[in-house]
Amino acid sequence: MNNKNFIEVSSWFKFLQNEICQEFIKIENEFSPNDKKGFIHKKWQPTTGNGNCEMRIMHGNVFEKVGVNISNISGVISEEFRNKIKGAEESNGKFIATGISLVAHMNSPLVPAVHMNTRFLSTSTTWFGGGMDLTPIYYSEKDAKYFHKKIKESCDQHNKNYYEKFKKIADEYFFLNHRNEPRGIGGIFYEYLDDDYEGNLSFTKSVGLTFLEIYKKIVRDNMHRKWTSYQKRYQAIKRGRYVEFNLLQDKGTKFGLMTNGNVDAILMSMPPTVEWV
Amino acid sequence: MNNKNFIEVSSWFKFLQNEICQEFIKIENEFSPNDKKGFIHKKWQPTTGNGNCEMRIMHGNVFEKVGVNISNISGVISEEFRNKIKGAEESNGKFIATGISLVAHMNSPLVPAVHMNTRFLSTSTTWFGGGMDLTPIYYSEKDAKYFHKKIKESCDQHNKNYYEKFKKIADEYFFLNHRNEPRGIGGIFYEYLDDDYEGNLSFTKSVGLTFLEIYKKIVRDNMHRKWTSYQKRYQAIKRGRYVEFNLLQDKGTKFGLMTNGNVDAILMSMPPTVEWV
Repeated sequence: MNNKNFIEVSSWFKFLQNEICQEFIKIENEFSPNDKKGFIHKKWQPTTGNGNCEMRIMHGNVFEKVGVNISNISGVISEEFRNKIKGAEESNGKFIATGISLVAHMNSPLVPAVHMNTRFLSTSTTWFGGGMDLTPIYYSEKDAKYFHKKIKESCDQHNKNYYEKFKKIADEYFFLNHRNEPRGIGGIFYEYLDDDYEGNLSFTKSVGLTFLEIYKKIVRDNMHRKWTSYQKRYQAIKRGRYVEFNLLQDKGTKFGLMTNGNVDAILMSMPPTVEWV
Repeated sequence: MNNKNFIEVSSWFKFLQNEICQEFIKIENEFSPNDKKGFIHKKWQPTTGNGNCEMRIMHGNVFEKVGVNISNISGVISEEFRNKIKGAEESNGKFIATGISLVAHMNSPLVPAVHMNTRFLSTSTTWFGGGMDLTPIYYSEKDAKYFHKKIKESCDQHNKNYYEKFKKIADEYFFLNHRNEPRGIGGIFYEYLDDDYEGNLSFTKSVGLTFLEIYKKIVRDNMHRKWTSYQKRYQAIKRGRYVEFNLLQDKGTKFGLMTNGNVDAILMSMPPTVEWV
């Protein structure tokens, strides 16, 4: 494990967190200039090791609930979970991790929900992982095409195989088994990217910046469209699927909760209002 | 496995389902005589074996959402889950099961939510299981004392050890590990009760009838009390814990979803409206 690399990557995540939050506040101000919104910042130190984490959450007029969390943690993975993390048995459970994680649930049912996270982990081996995926309440072909086209363009600048490979992983991962339906329209998801530190970091930076470029356009394109209370209720029901996915299947959520992570930070991904009929 | 016993027990569950639904409709009529409510009945046959199931669901003025389901299923448990069910490896996965399951989420935040289920299962061995537990939004010592006192009286008529033993199981089971907090005020929970068919059935009948006696009183005692929108919102947040418990921990929910059970029937336990801050 290279400490210099860890500092470099975690500094990038911190920078990205700021960029994203500033842009989202700008969008809120454009939408409702007389009702200023901002992020609440909560910092904490993990109880299970050393490090520092920061959760930023905003309840706005466009962003009904958005969380942008960064975490820097080093510690020891308990024996029962070591076989689930690459290289953790060889490191006797020792690990160091830094990451950024974002989930946005939007007030308008015509603006898709989104998830993005990228991370850098070391056990006895070191790798990058992450991705992004979009969950529209109502499918828009225009948005879907734009979303995937921009991701592909960004991936192609790094490796011509990335988009197809990482899109497939996302399609398989963001799928509700018990309902036999996808969570949304997918995106990309990658793990164990470790062949070239500089190149992998550069790609990981691209994922973050591409996310911001894509999503701010999709939000601005749709946020002024009129919607009905029927559509809002349908959004609440659709959000139930998001909850089901995160609590039944999402590996990060389950791992975080089982290893005594910060419950509020882990469950920042939960939608603000949900209905089950 | 004794087919005669199976028919006897499943007939009891069918009878109990009717009794409960009639009583709940009576309560709705008392509360709002000019706005009649009733249960929607949905019958289906399990896709994973033989049998017949019936889900009854009501969206009322007192009962915001209540489901009372019965299921009668025989089939083969897939190899990967056999080690999780007593006697299933010895029976080559063959099983027969009958049960009743009830969850009520109440409109008033001053009326507790409740869960009750009882069941009879055969693999290479045959047993009764079930229980009930109460989830107040706001704790009421009067209700809590009454709830536990009545359960104890009922248990004591069958076996002087039951209440203490089964209360302990409920306290341990209905506990959110990641939040380090109980789901509600507990109740009783039993499994693998197989020492005496007649006695165990008699106890299982008591659990169902005692549930109905207790809960109808708690509902009537509290349903006319005035509540505020603040209390209603707190209820929605508290319900988030119910969702977390059922999707992260509840064995019946996870088992049902993993074995391709009827998703609507399994997730009938989900609260109608939920918030995460």
